[in-house]
Amino acid sequence: MERRALRALPAGDESVVIGGQRVKDIGEFGLIELISAALPPQIRATSSLLLGLGDDGAVWRPTSGEDVVVTTDSLVENIHFRRDWTDWESLGHKILAVNVSDLAAMGSLPKIAVITLGLSGDELVSDLQALYRGIGDLAHRNAMTIAGGDIVRSPHSLLFHVTALGETRQRRFLVRSGAKSGDVIAVTGTLGASAAGLRLLAMEPDDPRRSATTTQTLIDAHLRPEPRVALGAILLEHGATSAMDLSDGLAGDLLKILEASRVSAELDARRVPVAAAVRALFPDEWFDLALRGGEDYELLFTAPSVAWEPIARSIEDVGGTAERIGRITKRMDDASRIEIIDMRGVRRVCEFGAFDHYRDR
Amino acid sequence: MERRALRALPAGDESVVIGGQRVKDIGEFGLIELISAALPPQIRATSSLLLGLGDDGAVWRPTSGEDVVVTTDSLVENIHFRRDWTDWESLGHKILAVNVSDLAAMGSLPKIAVITLGLSGDELVSDLQALYRGIGDLAHRNAMTIAGGDIVRSPHSLLFHVTALGETRQRRFLVRSGAKSGDVIAVTGTLGASAAGLRLLAMEPDDPRRSATTTQTLIDAHLRPEPRVALGAILLEHGATSAMDLSDGLAGDLLKILEASRVSAELDARRVPVAAAVRALFPDEWFDLALRGGEDYELLFTAPSVAWEPIARSIEDVGGTAERIGRITKRMDDASRIEIIDMRGVRRVCEFGAFDHYRDR
Repeated sequence: MERRALRALPAGDESVVIGGQRVKDIGEFGLIELISAALPPQIRATSSLLLGLGDDGAVWRPTSGEDVVVTTDSLVENIHFRRDWTDWESLGHKILAVNVSDLAAMGSLPKIAVITLGLSGDELVSDLQALYRGIGDLAHRNAMTIAGGDIVRSPHSLLFHVTALGETRQRRFLVRSGAKSGDVIAVTGTLGASAAGLRLLAMEPDDPRRSATTTQTLIDAHLRPEPRVALGAILLEHGATSAMDLSDGLAGDLLKILEASRVSAELDARRVPVAAAVRALFPDEWFDLALRGGEDYELLFTAPSVAWEPIARSIEDVGGTAERIGRITKRMDDASRIEIIDMRGVRRVCEFGAFDHYRDR
Repeated sequence: MERRALRALPAGDESVVIGGQRVKDIGEFGLIELISAALPPQIRATSSLLLGLGDDGAVWRPTSGEDVVVTTDSLVENIHFRRDWTDWESLGHKILAVNVSDLAAMGSLPKIAVITLGLSGDELVSDLQALYRGIGDLAHRNAMTIAGGDIVRSPHSLLFHVTALGETRQRRFLVRSGAKSGDVIAVTGTLGASAAGLRLLAMEPDDPRRSATTTQTLIDAHLRPEPRVALGAILLEHGATSAMDLSDGLAGDLLKILEASRVSAELDARRVPVAAAVRALFPDEWFDLALRGGEDYELLFTAPSVAWEPIARSIEDVGGTAERIGRITKRMDDASRIEIIDMRGVRRVCEFGAFDHYRDR
């Protein structure tokens, strides 16, 4: 990918000298120093961080009166990412982004992250610096502080583990359990691009779809998802009744909201927003990619019908998009169900459940 | 070990039914339900936890006016523990204990933990329930809440990742950088027992030292270290100038305090507290085990001489022990050094640095 080629250019004297060094050459403490230096100075120390990298823990002063939101996510090599399919800067972006996305889904303001690296020791120091540039960029744009973490030996596969802390906004936050019968169901952005990007990465290099003009955009949707922090705040402010971020696919994730809220849903397939590039490159599969693909990191939410217009307008005001895709219905028995209105306008019950990482492969 | 034998007894009907099931049989969501049930109800929901297991994040309300202390630690199979050397309940204890110990070293009050499991899917469900009983016991004794976490696929080795959050006490906390020339250097408890226990675990079963009456105590010191939460609070209250928990060995960890505080130290080997069992089973190595063994999870601290007596008395009042082992001295140049007074009263410079997980093996 282009980003990989760019990364090989020396960024400065230090990068040239240490370019070929590996983690085991400089050791744990040498690495901590270099990756700290790869972070923008603003995100290493802020007025709310009283004590950061280098002590037994970090000390953080939340804004007075706000509650603390805690979320945690791990990425394991060859399960959640492949080293030959990503560049290190994108990987850094993504390990933080998936955590920030969880905070965004609650309408929370991201503040602090601690990051653990599991490394064999054979990794290039320059790759880890690129990783931290990716982390630093996203943290900086969200005014977050990287407060430390841990480095552990992991001989078999790269591991990344992030815990992110956010603040509530006026002590309020969005949950999954608030959807009410009659509410609008909506999503931000478009769905299926990340899953399409993953398919493209897995294709043989000579597959013609690998060289479409839109290919890199779809791959980027997979490698560098953008957490919807500003949109989560809008949802909270305008009275959304539930929200979550789409990590396991629309059908399975919607079911989690339905079960938490003890309701059912009617989903209009014709309204699910899917990018033209996904439809063009995957004419037979695009709806399945949108419904079950996962890793979109867009926000799925419900809101009373009267709140829909103000929400959609506010989202457009900040350059985003949102689409109504269905409505919440009463549950007929103890099971939450999704009824799909398909492309021809025919109603049928959705058979997909939530993706289970141990059972669905 | 005895604990393993005890665990095989059925604890109730449910345990019998699910005893032979593996994680992949019941899936991610089934597992979350069962391990949640293995936690004492008090630690799943407290008045300060507004939202716990099952949403995108947990929401926690810190005590008004207090700051938040964040710490994180990972354990990787065959690096930090061996499955055949521990029982699952002890393993659960330890993965939480090493994090709580970091909070204790700062004088912080532990409140919340989020725990990520990296599992292949072949693990027995009953083993993971035992793991959560170990986690639950320690959390309960420290009035902590387990607020959620994550389960990820990890095909090659078991992974555990914990982030623990604590509160400060009246907005104050202990750091590594406060040691002053003339301060007393002291440690809680005794050193070397954990390293001795690890040596015993690694011995052939027919080694006579494996059957000493004290063997299990030393092994337990390794498998089930007790974080010194109450002692950390005493240190903070009585004006200790610096503290940290002993995870990488006395010599290396003391050097971290010295470097952070820009001072040197004089360490009296004759005063380093080592359990009689360690001296008896390792007559030639006991001092090395105490100085470099690591994983003691006792507190190393410095304090003005006038504070020493009140600290020692308060620690004894709660059933603990502490020993003066040296004093902080001025640094002669840019390097912090440890001068050791050895068993025969001879002064020499300590050659040990901090243990580096990539370089020192």
